[in-house]
Amino acid sequence: MLFQVRMDVHLPHDLDPEARTELLAREKAYSQDLQRAGKWPHIWRIAGEYANISIFDVDSNDELHTLLSGLPLFPHMSIHVTPLATHPSDINA
Amino acid sequence: MLFQVRMDVHLPHDLDPEARTELLAREKAYSQDLQRAGKWPHIWRIAGEYANISIFDVDSNDELHTLLSGLPLFPHMSIHVTPLATHPSDINA
Amino acid sequence: MLFQVRMDVHLPHDLDPEARTELLAREKAYSQDLQRAGKWPHIWRIAGEYANISIFDVDSNDELHTLLSGLPLFPHMSIHVTPLATHPSDINA
Amino acid sequence: MLFQVRMDVHLPHDLDPEARTELLAREKAYSQDLQRAGKWPHIWRIAGEYANISIFDVDSNDELHTLLSGLPLFPHMSIHVTPLATHPSDINA
Amino acid sequence: MLFQVRMDVHLPHDLDPEARTELLAREKAYSQDLQRAGKWPHIWRIAGEYANISIFDVDSNDELHTLLSGLPLFPHMSIHVTPLATHPSDINA
Amino acid sequence: MLFQVRMDVHLPHDLDPEARTELLAREKAYSQDLQRAGKWPHIWRIAGEYANISIFDVDSNDELHTLLSGLPLFPHMSIHVTPLATHPSDINA
Amino acid sequence: MLFQVRMDVHLPHDLDPEARTELLAREKAYSQDLQRAGKWPHIWRIAGEYANISIFDVDSNDELHTLLSGLPLFPHMSIHVTPLATHPSDINA
Amino acid sequence: MLFQVRMDVHLPHDLDPEARTELLAREKAYSQDLQRAGKWPHIWRIAGEYANISIFDVDSNDELHTLLSGLPLFPHMSIHVTPLATHPSDINA
Amino acid sequence: MLFQVRMDVHLPHDLDPEARTELLAREKAYSQDLQRAGKWPHIWRIAGEYANISIFDVDSNDELHTLLSGLPLFPHMSIHVTPLATHPSDINA
Amino acid sequence: MLFQVRMDVHLPHDLDPEARTELLAREKAYSQDLQRAGKWPHIWRIAGEYANISIFDVDSNDELHTLLSGLPLFPHMSIHVTPLATHPSDINA
Repeated sequence: MLFQVRMDVHLPHDLDPEARTELLAREKAYSQDLQRAGKWPHIWRIAGEYANISIFDVDSNDELHTLLSGLPLFPHMSIHVTPLATHPSDINA
Repeated sequence: MLFQVRMDVHLPHDLDPEARTELLAREKAYSQDLQRAGKWPHIWRIAGEYANISIFDVDSNDELHTLLSGLPLFPHMSIHVTPLATHPSDINA
Repeated sequence: MLFQVRMDVHLPHDLDPEARTELLAREKAYSQDLQRAGKWPHIWRIAGEYANISIFDVDSNDELHTLLSGLPLFPHMSIHVTPLATHPSDINA
Repeated sequence: MLFQVRMDVHLPHDLDPEARTELLAREKAYSQDLQRAGKWPHIWRIAGEYANISIFDVDSNDELHTLLSGLPLFPHMSIHVTPLATHPSDINA
Repeated sequence: MLFQVRMDVHLPHDLDPEARTELLAREKAYSQDLQRAGKWPHIWRIAGEYANISIFDVDSNDELHTLLSGLPLFPHMSIHVTPLATHPSDINA
Repeated sequence: MLFQVRMDVHLPHDLDPEARTELLAREKAYSQDLQRAGKWPHIWRIAGEYANISIFDVDSNDELHTLLSGLPLFPHMSIHVTPLATHPSDINA
Repeated sequence: MLFQVRMDVHLPHDLDPEARTELLAREKAYSQDLQRAGKWPHIWRIAGEYANISIFDVDSNDELHTLLSGLPLFPHMSIHVTPLATHPSDINA
Repeated sequence: MLFQVRMDVHLPHDLDPEARTELLAREKAYSQDLQRAGKWPHIWRIAGEYANISIFDVDSNDELHTLLSGLPLFPHMSIHVTPLATHPSDINA
Repeated sequence: MLFQVRMDVHLPHDLDPEARTELLAREKAYSQDLQRAGKWPHIWRIAGEYANISIFDVDSNDELHTLLSGLPLFPHMSIHVTPLATHPSDINA
Repeated sequence: MLFQVRMDVHLPHDLDPEARTELLAREKAYSQDLQRAGKWPHIWRIAGEYANISIFDVDSNDELHTLLSGLPLFPHMSIHVTPLATHPSDINA
């Protein structure tokens, strides 16, 4: 079951540079683990913004929330979820 | 080069039913031709809305506009385009 | 799996009164069938508005879209879906 | 008398971790007391957001405000209330 | 129990003048009946707009919706309700 | 001459508790003086929000601004004013 | 007492050309009468839009509403009023 | 003196096809005359939308409004103007 | 050439009181110099808000930006500019 | 391939003056290098705002994001990108 997820990152200006580096490394590892597991099939940068548009493939809303709220950057992001359904014109559906 | 495209359809209430059927058939054929050509790799229905979120893969903004403005439903849709770039955490990039 | 769904109804002013009555009767029957089937556990009127806030209980986004797009009033409503997850403070969860 | 209440939580980044833990424990206890008392019959997490959609069942606007303004997290939330009425299609009404 | 209600009127341009006159007369009578009954204690015109801000005094959300949805102009208005509670600084409370 | 005034309070999180108590006491006294003087005939809490909807009765825009900008909480509030006129259906007008 | 008034004109596309000409002539005469009477001291076109920003000088909100609702174009405009007060830096105040 | 102008076109669905063709031809000729005269140095299509972003080079706000309100499509467009000034980093300024 | 300018002031809460007094005195002197020079013919307080609506009379967008960006309060304001043209009904035009 | 880019700058109030000067100097040098390279053909100040509207000329969305995210001011700006296509009325196209 697919969801489009938009994440906008707002890091505090006074974040310690080392803490920042470590935080972003954890975020990247967390994201790549989910990508490898097939849970996060697409992630794109929105050109010009510190934001991404992603597609998640999960079994339920609960699983989606667990994955998103576990993001190391979760406290520093605003996130909006759009549930996706099969489109009748999709040649792969 | 990828773009997210959101399309919201607003058909006039007084559209002739036959014209409506023919219009939607042309839209579907147009969309599936572009999907088969690799130009429109993803199309999803937004759950609960007469709208879709799509991913287009084109060589330029001009090509994107040509494809979108050629949609049979173009006069009846509001469309918003978001340019996408490679995300540094993308395991496939 | 639960979703909050808000529906705002916009009937055309020039709708034929008989067609209007028949349309609303079909909408009511459709809604009550889904309520009895457990798919639409809650429906509330928003006080002062021709709109409702509902809770749907479905197996997937696809099922949700099938149910909503089948509403007789679907062409005359704007609908917005919010996916719901279990809250950690919910005493029934 | 039912009200939909949406609460969005915005905790300050520099909140002391112990104060945070204690605050969230008080919030949970407060919420669960009201749930057990039948005043707060539903609470759902909005998938992907630090926010909830809840249903309150109270005797008056005054009671609703007393309950909400007493929430330990009240100073850190934006709250929006929507008054709900019986829907004519509700099979339980 | 008090509610603020804002009503914005949007009459169709092609409304028959006689039907318009009769509709507005019915609206005025309906409103004045509720004012006399103490259900609609305040009604003010928003300066420069075809809109009003009103205060309703009702026993429940259901009563409020019944009164508002019975307005002859209801199909031609957008209405927004704000539930009001006693303010701790109110010298009359 | 009447004005509807909406005030939303945004107190800084790090406000000293004693300063906060003293500030709110001054606000209450200031408000109640104006209520007793007939300048501020109505004040209601918006249910669930740290905000109020008030009615002011003043001789001019200048007097209104003087009263509002003198509020002890003025630097911590966003305020929006709506000028009110007599409604033709008002039975007391 | 001054008010800023913004008026946006939305004429129906199917308005009869003669009716349109006559309507605009009446609007102009009405406006110029009020300008000569000192009630409407400023009127400016918003560059690029079928809209104006005006300053009205009236004795009360009631007088303002009477003047604005009497505009021949009133049924075809959206109007927003902002009450103005003396600015402490104004060298003419 | 430069202005950015965004124009969104909303043609009525029931516009006669011949009238539409003639209208668009006049719009194009009008635009190209102004481009040749140096008054409209840039015009770009917004990808995916029936809209353009343009740069106008005029002597005054009055000249700008005269040019824009003379557009054959003016009654069918929403237009927003942004006044531009020299940027201190502009290497051509 | 006239422009309507809206300025909303957002002073930081922790601004040193002396620095605040000095800043506001400089702002007032700056504004009054421009008023005396005829560049800033009108300044009004928006009733109830720490904001003003002003009219500027300048030769170009560049001059307007120079004047506005030179305001001592510029770093603490959000500013929006609307270019004004002569209105065809203006009796003074 | 052209993109319109709007950048709004929000510098923290407590930024060290020397750091601020150095940051702005780096931003200016970075911008002028891209202008000289033909990547950033237009940059305009929005009159009255600490913001610019720019045109970028790049080969891809990826190149655009690389250029924008490399801006020294990137962490202090909100940026919005609009993809541009050739307009059919453009005399230079």
